[in-house]
Amino acid sequence: MQSFLPPHRTLMGPGPSDVSDRILQAMARPTIGHLDPEFQRMMEEIKTGLKALFQTENRLTFPVSAPGSAGMETCFHNLVEEGDTVLVVRNGVFGDRMRENVVRAGGTAVLVDAEWGTAPDLALIEAALKANAEISIVAFVHAETSTGVLADAAGICALAQKHDCLTIMDAVTSLGGVPVLVDEWAVDAVYSGSQKCLSCTPGLSPVSFSEKALDRVRARKTPVRSWFLDLTLVMNYWDGEGGRSYHHTAPVNALYGFHEALVMIFEEGLDASLERHAKTHTALAAGLQSMGLSFLVDADVRLPQLNTVVVPEGVDEASIRSHLLSAYDLEIGAGLGPLAGKVWRIGLMGSSAKMANVELCLTALADAFNRNQYKADGKAAVAAAQAAFAA
Amino acid sequence: MQSFLPPHRTLMGPGPSDVSDRILQAMARPTIGHLDPEFQRMMEEIKTGLKALFQTENRLTFPVSAPGSAGMETCFHNLVEEGDTVLVVRNGVFGDRMRENVVRAGGTAVLVDAEWGTAPDLALIEAALKANAEISIVAFVHAETSTGVLADAAGICALAQKHDCLTIMDAVTSLGGVPVLVDEWAVDAVYSGSQKCLSCTPGLSPVSFSEKALDRVRARKTPVRSWFLDLTLVMNYWDGEGGRSYHHTAPVNALYGFHEALVMIFEEGLDASLERHAKTHTALAAGLQSMGLSFLVDADVRLPQLNTVVVPEGVDEASIRSHLLSAYDLEIGAGLGPLAGKVWRIGLMGSSAKMANVELCLTALADAFNRNQYKADGKAAVAAAQAAFAA
Repeated sequence: MQSFLPPHRTLMGPGPSDVSDRILQAMARPTIGHLDPEFQRMMEEIKTGLKALFQTENRLTFPVSAPGSAGMETCFHNLVEEGDTVLVVRNGVFGDRMRENVVRAGGTAVLVDAEWGTAPDLALIEAALKANAEISIVAFVHAETSTGVLADAAGICALAQKHDCLTIMDAVTSLGGVPVLVDEWAVDAVYSGSQKCLSCTPGLSPVSFSEKALDRVRARKTPVRSWFLDLTLVMNYWDGEGGRSYHHTAPVNALYGFHEALVMIFEEGLDASLERHAKTHTALAAGLQSMGLSFLVDADVRLPQLNTVVVPEGVDEASIRSHLLSAYDLEIGAGLGPLAGKVWRIGLMGSSAKMANVELCLTALADAFNRNQYKADGKAAVAAAQAAFAA
Repeated sequence: MQSFLPPHRTLMGPGPSDVSDRILQAMARPTIGHLDPEFQRMMEEIKTGLKALFQTENRLTFPVSAPGSAGMETCFHNLVEEGDTVLVVRNGVFGDRMRENVVRAGGTAVLVDAEWGTAPDLALIEAALKANAEISIVAFVHAETSTGVLADAAGICALAQKHDCLTIMDAVTSLGGVPVLVDEWAVDAVYSGSQKCLSCTPGLSPVSFSEKALDRVRARKTPVRSWFLDLTLVMNYWDGEGGRSYHHTAPVNALYGFHEALVMIFEEGLDASLERHAKTHTALAAGLQSMGLSFLVDADVRLPQLNTVVVPEGVDEASIRSHLLSAYDLEIGAGLGPLAGKVWRIGLMGSSAKMANVELCLTALADAFNRNQYKADGKAAVAAAQAAFAA
């Protein structure tokens, strides 16, 4: 067994995205204790930064010590118990994972489906709320990582409030890539991931809870099914009044990296970062279109940070990805579920959202296509992207 | 918000322990995708290394993507469901956390208590097994981090087998510090932590499951209450036949560090590492005794890697820890629960188990004591430690 020296990849899949040297070096700083006063000071800064990122005043805003799936579970396991009915909006893999979470937490899911690649239909959501008065929570995915679709979060939250429901929002791929306005929309529970538009290493899941959400947790009749994720316990560590108490050992060095990721976002400015995502997407889209490629998702609900591109007829999608990885050290994502083999998912998240990546991706794709008998002009595609970026 | 520059501490608490530069630098290597072929090759090496460390041939042996508490939950949530009765041996904080886990998983716990600071009593365990035929799992803590006590794992496992029960063992503090013989003892489910005697950063929990344990999971009547920790899903990523499939995004860089921690353990040799823990403990004990301090735990069940030292009459334990931290950048641990204020927990785990740390700790303690009107001769204590180490 020898030390592992990973290759240098350019990460343009659905996450992880490129991680800057600053974040990597922050993670390599000396480990200190999870109850060290200096560490606690850093925890406070992380909470403050995260509140700004989620655009919320929610007191309980912190990163869960595990990947996004555990953030999702933190929301569902705390807010849902036996006897609860949850409306789950499902238009991709992560909507279905929400349904799974409702069931595992002991609740019943009422599903409102939308075709993969399309946005949730507000009229169907409203109809389901009217038809099922027992629904007390509405759960939806803001940015569906499996399809590249943006949901109308403001609209869904307004419907939920009208019907006296709390909301759970998946912001794994949206946070930092498109506006996420937790207080303005009145989202009650939200979770994200460190490795998408925040461009940190994978392994942490930022979450935030409204007072209404916490009241619901406090009023539970049964204990939360997960001890590790039970907010009434976790908050003694992340939000202890008059001193923190031990719950679990926090992932100290991962949090160093996460702190640095926040520092970098606010150095650039959140608005500037969102604009960079939007402009880079426009450039990539122009380049892809010049090669005759099309998007799965209509332009008005398309995510800038996750581009779902239809595999042209007769092209073997896996061989294209394999060539990109072996010849260009470039990772793009495959389709999931019913979209496997039919689309690529090209991420422009965080540090990966830059013109150098767009140009590399277009050049590498054109090369791979030409080996696959699908004729493409890489230089023209790069020129189209540059023109769109400059516009 | 500015970059966080942590102080350099010497970590002699109950974990995290000192993390070597090699591990920190491994974590700072460039992030690659969690499905990258190179990453998958590294995952296989981690599994192979972990099997050697746990001394098991168990095929399903991998690190859970979250801290030890999540490893604990992985064991209990997969093996326990509604209607199950679990015998929980409780002689400290972590035995009680096992009880909590049984309840959260929907099971019933039968408790066999031992006084904090003492080892579990095999006769009481056998009596409980005889009196409660419905017990199907025996759960116990191998090395109680809250008290510094080693349990007779071989004896407990033999009793469990005699009564046709599976076993769940907490090896968070034991793995790498004292022998952990999963196959020889026939432990069915075991979890540990990265930040104790493996001297890696906190955030990962190595686990291992026997075929009997997996048969029990496959025979469940109800779904595992945690989607994130459901072994039937997680194993498609860590142990996929004919290719891995996505479950959650693994903490890529944390796993780089964990891989390097394993490389370092096998470079030294597991037996040599265990001997180093034992010898360093002997040295520390001699030094502490020369200052008139005593241990909470009897010598025959004392953990070398976690030394629970009784706070002398009239000494304010918090002020001692505070002086160690501010004047020596040295962290030692406080007592938990009923032992709060009454003991210190001095860790000699992994890289922290070395004479330089022992000498620093004795010197710093003597200085702090002398400021607290408890007279101690630091130089004599160091000399006693060195003599014991050389013996």
